[in-house]
Amino acid sequence: MRSEILSVGTELLMGQIANTDAQFLSRELREMGIGVYYHTVVGDNPARLKEQIVTSLERSDLLILTGGLGPTPDDLTKETAAEALGLAMKEDPASRQELLARFEMMGRECTPNNFKQVWFPEGAKILPNPNGTAPGCLLDRDGKIVVILPGPPRELNPMFTDHVKPYLLERAGRIMVSRFIHIYGIGESAIAYRLGDLLDSANPTLATYVGNGDIVLRATASAAAREDAESLLVPMEHKIEKLFGDSILSWDGREMPEVVLDLLKRHGATVACAESCTGGMIASSIVDIPGSSDVFLEGCVTYSNEAKMRRLGVSAKTLELHGAVSEETAREMAEGMRRTSGATYALATTGIAGPGGGTDTKPVGLIYVALATPEGTRVVERRGNRSRTQNRRGAALEALDMLRKELEKRS
Amino acid sequence: MRSEILSVGTELLMGQIANTDAQFLSRELREMGIGVYYHTVVGDNPARLKEQIVTSLERSDLLILTGGLGPTPDDLTKETAAEALGLAMKEDPASRQELLARFEMMGRECTPNNFKQVWFPEGAKILPNPNGTAPGCLLDRDGKIVVILPGPPRELNPMFTDHVKPYLLERAGRIMVSRFIHIYGIGESAIAYRLGDLLDSANPTLATYVGNGDIVLRATASAAAREDAESLLVPMEHKIEKLFGDSILSWDGREMPEVVLDLLKRHGATVACAESCTGGMIASSIVDIPGSSDVFLEGCVTYSNEAKMRRLGVSAKTLELHGAVSEETAREMAEGMRRTSGATYALATTGIAGPGGGTDTKPVGLIYVALATPEGTRVVERRGNRSRTQNRRGAALEALDMLRKELEKRS
Repeated sequence: MRSEILSVGTELLMGQIANTDAQFLSRELREMGIGVYYHTVVGDNPARLKEQIVTSLERSDLLILTGGLGPTPDDLTKETAAEALGLAMKEDPASRQELLARFEMMGRECTPNNFKQVWFPEGAKILPNPNGTAPGCLLDRDGKIVVILPGPPRELNPMFTDHVKPYLLERAGRIMVSRFIHIYGIGESAIAYRLGDLLDSANPTLATYVGNGDIVLRATASAAAREDAESLLVPMEHKIEKLFGDSILSWDGREMPEVVLDLLKRHGATVACAESCTGGMIASSIVDIPGSSDVFLEGCVTYSNEAKMRRLGVSAKTLELHGAVSEETAREMAEGMRRTSGATYALATTGIAGPGGGTDTKPVGLIYVALATPEGTRVVERRGNRSRTQNRRGAALEALDMLRKELEKRS
Repeated sequence: MRSEILSVGTELLMGQIANTDAQFLSRELREMGIGVYYHTVVGDNPARLKEQIVTSLERSDLLILTGGLGPTPDDLTKETAAEALGLAMKEDPASRQELLARFEMMGRECTPNNFKQVWFPEGAKILPNPNGTAPGCLLDRDGKIVVILPGPPRELNPMFTDHVKPYLLERAGRIMVSRFIHIYGIGESAIAYRLGDLLDSANPTLATYVGNGDIVLRATASAAAREDAESLLVPMEHKIEKLFGDSILSWDGREMPEVVLDLLKRHGATVACAESCTGGMIASSIVDIPGSSDVFLEGCVTYSNEAKMRRLGVSAKTLELHGAVSEETAREMAEGMRRTSGATYALATTGIAGPGGGTDTKPVGLIYVALATPEGTRVVERRGNRSRTQNRRGAALEALDMLRKELEKRS
C-alpha cells in the first residue's frame, strides 16, 4: 500500500510549529508495513489544497490529511476534500449532540460557527475526538482510503492510535504488539552497529530513538493473532538481551530514575544525594517521579567548599590536599551524606562541568561519581568534555546507574 | 517572491526525525518577507525527486532543497537538480582541497566516495560548510533561485544564516535586525491577545514562541541600512514595554536563571536555596549557567520533615501545627537556609506536586515559595494543578522571579 501525508496549515508554512504530525504518522505507518512516499504541507488555500488532493490521490492508495478541521472560515480541509472527491457535505446528528454536550460541560456557549465541525463528506466514518471539538473522519471507497485528522498532536495521536490504526489493521487482518526497550551507557550509533541486520527486519520491525539520556529500541511485530505477534518478538528480544545485557534499563518504557526508584522500593531501601557539579539534577530527576518521597530522603547541593565541610563533614585537609574535584572528596561527600541523612545509600558528584575552570591535570569534563553503601564506597572517574549541561546530565545518570547496578546485584 | 521547501530523505518519511529544517527555513523566510507556499518531503528516489523539482520550479521563484548531499550513493539531490535544470556537474577544486584538509585534520582517510560532495551543478555559487563535509550551493538563473543545503540542522542553520540570507537580502538591498524579548508570568494566548494587531505588523514582524517556562517575542525589522532597521524597532519596543512592564525578563535573549545570576553579580550578593517539592530544580537551573559558583553557595533538597529540621532548623512545632506544606514552614526553610549558608538571599519551596498527596484543604498544586532577604521574608502561595513536572517547574521559576523583582527594586 502506498501512502502519503498532506498537512494543511499556514502555521506550518510560517514555521510556528514543526510538522510532528507527519513524523508521528510516518512512524506508525512504517511499523504497520505501509510505505510513506510523500509529506506535503499547503496553507489554508482551497485552490492549492484541492489541486494537491487530486495529485495525491492519483499516486497513493492511502491519503492522510491533517489540520484545518476547526470552527474558523480558514478551516476548509473536509469541505475541499469532499469537493475533490465529488461528495456532498452532511451534518452528523450524533456529533452535533456531543459538541453541544461538550460546550455545556465547559460552561461555554456553542456559537453557530462551531457547527461546521460536525459536517462531513457523505459516507464518511466519523472518528470521535475526546480531546477537542473537531471529530475526524475516514473515507474508504474505490480502493482509496482518505483519512482526515485534526492538527493538534494531542488530538491527532490518540485518534490515529484508537481508531485509524485498528481500522487499517482490521482491514488487513493484523494485530500489532510493541516493546519499548531502554538502553543506557551505549551511544545510538554503536547500538545501531551492534544491531546490524536486525534494524532491517520487516516483522518484527526494530527502530532506535534517542531518549532522555538513554536510547530507546522500539520492536513491533504484527500477525493475525496477538499470541503470534508476541511469539515473533521473542527471538528478537533474546538477541537484544544477548547484545546489551545489563545495559538494558527496562523492557517496558521506564527510564533510569523510575527504574532506580522501583529497585529501592523493592529492597525497602532509601537514598540521599550530595551534588556539586550536577547541582540538584539527581535529586530533581528522582523527585520528578510520583511517590519518590517513600525512598528519597534528602539532597544537598554543596557547591562551595564551605558547604561541603559544614553539611557533609568533608575534611578541610582532604579539600586542601586533593582539591574539591577529586576521588577523595567525592568519597567523603557520599559517606558524609549517608551518615548525616541516615539513608541506606548515598550518591555524590563533584567535577568540572565547564566551559571554564579546567586545568591541565583536571580538565573540563572530569567528574567523580561516588556511591556509599552499607558495605563501603565506590568512586568512578568520568572524563570527556561535551557541553556544560551534557557533562552534568551524564554525571547524574552515571550516579543513578551505579546505584541501579548495585541494587540489581543484590536482587 | 514565492518560495517553497523540498526536503529529501527517507529518514523523514520513516518518521525518524521531524522536518525541523522546513520549520527553521520558514521562520527565516517569513521574517524576510518571502512567502512560503509548500513544504514537500520525498525519499531518496531520483525519479520522484526530479518530477517534484520540475513541478516546484514551475510554481515558485525560490526553491530550497534540503538533504541528500552526503557521500553515499543514496545522496542524489545535487545530481538530480542539475538534471532537472539541464546542467552538467563539475568538480570544485577549492572545495576538494578543503575536504582533504578536513579529513587530514580529523586524522581519517578520505575515501574516494567522499569526492562526490565537491561536485556541483555548473555555474553554482558554493556555500562553505564549516560544520560538515558537504558544502551547499546556490543557483540564480532565469529569474529562479535554487538553493541546495545539507540536511543536518547544525550544518543547515548556520549555512542559511551566514550565506543564503545575506545573499537574498543583498539581492533585495535589505538589512535585518532582530530582538529576542523574554516575558515571564503571562501565558502565550494572553500575550497574543494583548499584542493584538502588532502581530500582523509587516515590518517589523513580531512572532511569539513558547520558551523554557517563559514566552519569547521575536521582533525583526528590515531596511536598506542597519540604523533604519533599528529605528523601525523603537516604536514597537516602546509598545511592548508599555504592555508588559516588569514581566519582561530581558531584551537580549537571556532566560530567568541567567537574568537572576547577572543581577546577583551586579549587587555583589549571593544566594542559597532550600527545596522541597521543586527537589533541586532551582539549584540545577542556576548551576547550569557557567560562572554560577561566584554567587550560588549551596542548596538543600529537604524532602523529609527530618531533613527540614536537621538541615535548616525548621521547628518541630511548626511542622506539627501547620504541616510541611504551609506558609510558616516555607518561611522557616528560607530563613534557616539563609542563616546556615550565610548567603545574602535564600529561596525555599514546599508544596504538593502531585499527582497524589492532595487533601481538601491542601490540594495538589498548592505550593509555597519563600524569599528571605536581609530585611525580612516574603512568602507567596501558588495554586492551580497541572502535571507534576509543570507544578514543580512553575514553582522554581516563581521563586527565581521573586528574587529577580527584589533585586530589580534595589537597582
